[in-house]
Amino acid sequence: MSGDAPGRDDGPRFDEGALRAQAGAILGAWGFGPDPVEKSVDGLVWADLRGIASHGVAMLPIYEGWLRAGRFDVSAKPAVVAEGPVVATVDGGSGMGFAAAHAAMTLAIAKARRLGLAAVAVRRSNHFGAAGRWATMASDAGLIGLATSSTVSPAIVPTGGLAARFGTNPIAFAAPGERGAPFVLDMATSTVALGRLMVASLRGEPVPEGWALGPDGRPTTDPALGYRSRLATPLGALPELSSHKGSGLAAMVEILSVLLPGATLSMDDPGPGARGDVGHCFVVLDPRAFDGGERFGATLDAMLGRLRATPAADPARPVLAAGDPERAALSRARTHGVALPRALVASLREVAARAGCAWVLGPATGPV
Amino acid sequence: MSGDAPGRDDGPRFDEGALRAQAGAILGAWGFGPDPVEKSVDGLVWADLRGIASHGVAMLPIYEGWLRAGRFDVSAKPAVVAEGPVVATVDGGSGMGFAAAHAAMTLAIAKARRLGLAAVAVRRSNHFGAAGRWATMASDAGLIGLATSSTVSPAIVPTGGLAARFGTNPIAFAAPGERGAPFVLDMATSTVALGRLMVASLRGEPVPEGWALGPDGRPTTDPALGYRSRLATPLGALPELSSHKGSGLAAMVEILSVLLPGATLSMDDPGPGARGDVGHCFVVLDPRAFDGGERFGATLDAMLGRLRATPAADPARPVLAAGDPERAALSRARTHGVALPRALVASLREVAARAGCAWVLGPATGPV
Repeated sequence: MSGDAPGRDDGPRFDEGALRAQAGAILGAWGFGPDPVEKSVDGLVWADLRGIASHGVAMLPIYEGWLRAGRFDVSAKPAVVAEGPVVATVDGGSGMGFAAAHAAMTLAIAKARRLGLAAVAVRRSNHFGAAGRWATMASDAGLIGLATSSTVSPAIVPTGGLAARFGTNPIAFAAPGERGAPFVLDMATSTVALGRLMVASLRGEPVPEGWALGPDGRPTTDPALGYRSRLATPLGALPELSSHKGSGLAAMVEILSVLLPGATLSMDDPGPGARGDVGHCFVVLDPRAFDGGERFGATLDAMLGRLRATPAADPARPVLAAGDPERAALSRARTHGVALPRALVASLREVAARAGCAWVLGPATGPV
Repeated sequence: MSGDAPGRDDGPRFDEGALRAQAGAILGAWGFGPDPVEKSVDGLVWADLRGIASHGVAMLPIYEGWLRAGRFDVSAKPAVVAEGPVVATVDGGSGMGFAAAHAAMTLAIAKARRLGLAAVAVRRSNHFGAAGRWATMASDAGLIGLATSSTVSPAIVPTGGLAARFGTNPIAFAAPGERGAPFVLDMATSTVALGRLMVASLRGEPVPEGWALGPDGRPTTDPALGYRSRLATPLGALPELSSHKGSGLAAMVEILSVLLPGATLSMDDPGPGARGDVGHCFVVLDPRAFDGGERFGATLDAMLGRLRATPAADPARPVLAAGDPERAALSRARTHGVALPRALVASLREVAARAGCAWVLGPATGPV
């Protein structure tokens, strides 16, 4: 996690402003307009500040590859193509997923404020960063938010199978407290995100049995095997631990994110040159529209407080509520900056050079 | 599973009519009126026919205990206590959960037909049987259905904890195909339902490491330990396999099912004499309200077809879609009847005797 306090050498540290400036310079140089640049910078740095390094500026080298492969239309503007009082479908025009997701969640929030509930599905989008970013837009507005997304290619092997059929299809769910922090669940429906296999692979470290499968469909502890061949397990990991449930959740996300708006299935890996057609779904509920609404925030605070007070197996590791680790990382990042691995800094420097934009990532607060 | 074809001695077999008659006689003798009896019989036998034995007539001895403990008001009628165009809150009056759930899902379906989306939350309910029953009501109507519920007492230990904080809080999600069968996910957010620990405990068989915890918070293979102390793991099973995700899903279900309608938290185990205050939440979406709606059913059929055609690790065990095992069990049950363990038949006979109702469970299609 890039939000750790300084200690071991995590690489140089940068403050939020530097990360924003560098990401904005690269995205602008690629030809994206002010709105997609702003929404993308917000989303990428939101993740980096919360220790979700796999969904932060580390995505820029990957976006560069997708840009060259023709997945992005830099001039796209999200457009509402179907709308009712509490539902809508947004066409992202194959632009930045952050811009489409922001437009869709903004619309869902406005609709839910009026009638207590809304759902907006999005097609022809691209990667929208951390799903928790969008669910949190709702909780910041005093509402409950659900965000789901398909992915560009499949990575989850259904229980008993030898090939991936679903994306790592994330689910994020956020709910607002009264005085306390919101509940923010943000999870891939795979056992772990592909990014964790990538990191273990780079470090040459074995992974727990159950994270990934070998080509024979049996669990492997070799992260490179699982990462390269994109054979991740669904949540539950192993058949005897109910991995069919994670597989089912991944399919549910596909139904909401792809089938509702009419996007491309994660299992239909697009060839080179294909425009982005990732799908998302956003659902927003207003607790005040329900009879428990008046006590909702206070009850959530109490429930999460009692959850955190659960007797812990290891007293040094208290029980956490979903969202707690990211808030702790945010606090550390505000003080110490965000550490980026040296290899990533080098990669970003090359991306910036190829984009023909300034190298503004600085000043680092640690050794470069 | 009680829906297996005859072979080993699963106990005597009964047809649907016999199960319905016996369940109806018992519920009626307890004083429930025609509507809750009908909805409960439908729900219990729905589960038995689909091999979900833990949520079928095997619940009647447990309901008897709850009836004596005062959890049921046999004269309750579900009432809508708050309503808008696309949302509502139902008060179940501490009656049969099946009656409250049926009323709430019926209302959600009617609302979703008008504006494409609806959510109905329920408080003061009791056990509503298999969650999939309610999600399937929506898919039978050509809609997408989500059903969640809290439970009477906690059983899921949050990651890193030593005590249960959430119910086994099920999530069911169903979506309609065009020509093919619907997608029906029905899962507890624990690794396995408590019923599976109970069954293993009765058989004296060890369970896989990760299903349950001992009092020290470490995995145990002793099902009696996990069942008696209600220390089940969240989906993911072990911290290194992301059990925090299952823990987060259980909390999400609690937020939707308990906090929205204002019911009692699963962690607040009610004392003897307390009326039932279980909560549920039902969300219904109409695919036709979204831009992908026209192709929704056909795309679902295709997606599930390709999922089932995934190369299998064991060719004798093809990859299944959520809902397939229950449909296969239903087909077997229609031909061979539903097997009930001898101990359950004996227990039901005692329940019927205590209720002062006829023993109508027959004729058995297998050896009694």
